[in-house]
Amino acid sequence: MEKFFSYGELWRFTKAVFISIDCSEQDAELATTGLLRADLRGIDSHGIARLNGYVRLWEAKRANSRPQIKVVHETPSTGVVDGDSGLGLVVAPFAMDLVIEKARQVGSGWIAVRNSNHFGIAAQHALKALEADMIGIVMTNASALVAPTFSIERLLGTNPICVAVPSGREPPFVADLATTTAANGKLEILQRKNELAPAGWIQDKDGLVSTNPHELKAGGALLPLGGDQGGHKGYALSAIVDIFSGVLSGANYGPWVPPFPAYVPIPENMPGKGIGHFFGAMRIDGFRKAADFKKDMDQWLVRFRTALPGNGHKEVMVPGDPERRMEATRSKEGIPLLRAVVENLHYLAEKFGIPPIT
Amino acid sequence: MEKFFSYGELWRFTKAVFISIDCSEQDAELATTGLLRADLRGIDSHGIARLNGYVRLWEAKRANSRPQIKVVHETPSTGVVDGDSGLGLVVAPFAMDLVIEKARQVGSGWIAVRNSNHFGIAAQHALKALEADMIGIVMTNASALVAPTFSIERLLGTNPICVAVPSGREPPFVADLATTTAANGKLEILQRKNELAPAGWIQDKDGLVSTNPHELKAGGALLPLGGDQGGHKGYALSAIVDIFSGVLSGANYGPWVPPFPAYVPIPENMPGKGIGHFFGAMRIDGFRKAADFKKDMDQWLVRFRTALPGNGHKEVMVPGDPERRMEATRSKEGIPLLRAVVENLHYLAEKFGIPPIT
Repeated sequence: MEKFFSYGELWRFTKAVFISIDCSEQDAELATTGLLRADLRGIDSHGIARLNGYVRLWEAKRANSRPQIKVVHETPSTGVVDGDSGLGLVVAPFAMDLVIEKARQVGSGWIAVRNSNHFGIAAQHALKALEADMIGIVMTNASALVAPTFSIERLLGTNPICVAVPSGREPPFVADLATTTAANGKLEILQRKNELAPAGWIQDKDGLVSTNPHELKAGGALLPLGGDQGGHKGYALSAIVDIFSGVLSGANYGPWVPPFPAYVPIPENMPGKGIGHFFGAMRIDGFRKAADFKKDMDQWLVRFRTALPGNGHKEVMVPGDPERRMEATRSKEGIPLLRAVVENLHYLAEKFGIPPIT
Repeated sequence: MEKFFSYGELWRFTKAVFISIDCSEQDAELATTGLLRADLRGIDSHGIARLNGYVRLWEAKRANSRPQIKVVHETPSTGVVDGDSGLGLVVAPFAMDLVIEKARQVGSGWIAVRNSNHFGIAAQHALKALEADMIGIVMTNASALVAPTFSIERLLGTNPICVAVPSGREPPFVADLATTTAANGKLEILQRKNELAPAGWIQDKDGLVSTNPHELKAGGALLPLGGDQGGHKGYALSAIVDIFSGVLSGANYGPWVPPFPAYVPIPENMPGKGIGHFFGAMRIDGFRKAADFKKDMDQWLVRFRTALPGNGHKEVMVPGDPERRMEATRSKEGIPLLRAVVENLHYLAEKFGIPPIT
């Protein structure tokens, strides 16, 4: 049910779509590279499958393709950026460049972003710090699907945390994780296959354990990381992401974060502007000589990559290893797209008069 | 089996013990206040029950009661502190004061600490930031009890993350969580009661699910937050804490972190110095006007505290609420200590010729 397409072909097409919704040449390329990084890294839920979602946000006037992105407040190491309702894929690189520049100046940089939209995968932005010998940190809030511990209300998003750490000879450490037991994308896969979800992923409308992957449509909720075994910690982590991204920036937070699907109504009485992100960069040599750090970091990485596996597993991995391998494979062999996704892209091709992907 | 003691009485006694191991008056008071905050907040595993552990570390010459704590490298917003093998309870306040001062100067401050020891509860240090209208962030690594996902080796500590966020009228948000499914202290309680652990807390020496709370003695390991439902995310979080605390500072990391119990041998070929911590402070008004932030933060806190509970639960709490309530209660009614702990303190009283607690 899948067909493979080259990265180059998808890049051409995606850029043309962003141009069609009035992005500048530069912004279209930035958004395209950002979006397709998800497909390259195997996070299919966050890549080109969402392209039509971005188009719909623009059509609903919830996303501005000609944003005036501005720094509205700052100190030498901190600040807030207003994304002017721009695509997160364009706003996030602006903020990430800024934290890297601040880190160059004073050791670290921290920017909270308001008035933005979905920015693709967090890792795409955090990885930029590695080129500058910095640790990159990226968070974002998202519309509410997750119930706090003991609650039956959905008040938090899947709110990911990403941390990328530079290394010497070893491939780097890149953790990028939703603060839920399972990402919403995994649930969508179960829904398509009509399979049950493991206990600990979902609760029903009364707060009871459920294995029904369609439970969210019936008032259920995703559970924070930890599920029924320490889920209050996942709730705390998700809340930290929401506060750093939403409250610190003046964006929306909690149940007021606007949803990605343009057909879902915007919450009433929103306290802030758009969705919020949080970006950080710390210069390695703001702490130690970079060479010393990299030697130790390589030892760390080797020790964990060569740890003894158990219970039938073949190897122990370091966060980021599966995605890096996938990126190597797909860069060579192409990106597989489900038929439904391809049809959706053909629809966009026709709509905007762009040659379809082949 | 418990007896209650006033905070004042425990404070007098604890200070006298720290003086007996040659701490200065000022350091003894700092260490006492830090240690007992755990008892006040209900984290009994990290409080006065560990006092003898600190004494043993000093006797084994693994802890230095007259440390020359130094900043060994810095930029305006970052740096590394060498704790000179001091008690973490003394080193941590030094580092926390430093990040607060850096945040005053340039918006945020970030210090990695090497050559330190156990610092009590992370929240004790993070809470200091609130007095300065800053967000406080504290992490520490710890000796290895936790297996990375798919591994049977213990390579990570329970590595906590603490984030404290200021508020206006509402009590603040204070998340302080070990990055394991369950803290080691909870396991100790099950051991004492001879009860089984829930699945997801522990694995046996072959990496299989275990409910035996004594499994660690037989080569088993604690599981990262998420257990068998997303434990790779807890592994990633624990690793982030280890890298920030250990690798960034030049302390030990992974399986080389020295253990707290002085009778457990120090690992061979340690790559760094002592254990590592990581401290951060961000000035609220480095992002927005503090008054605006607090208004939104209060709304956030009220929304979560008044969320609808489900599944028989009476209320939804915000991270830090249980500990804050416990602190109010115990400040008034005293601190309950188990008989074994009291006997241990009587032993210290005799040893050092200090009037015992009554």
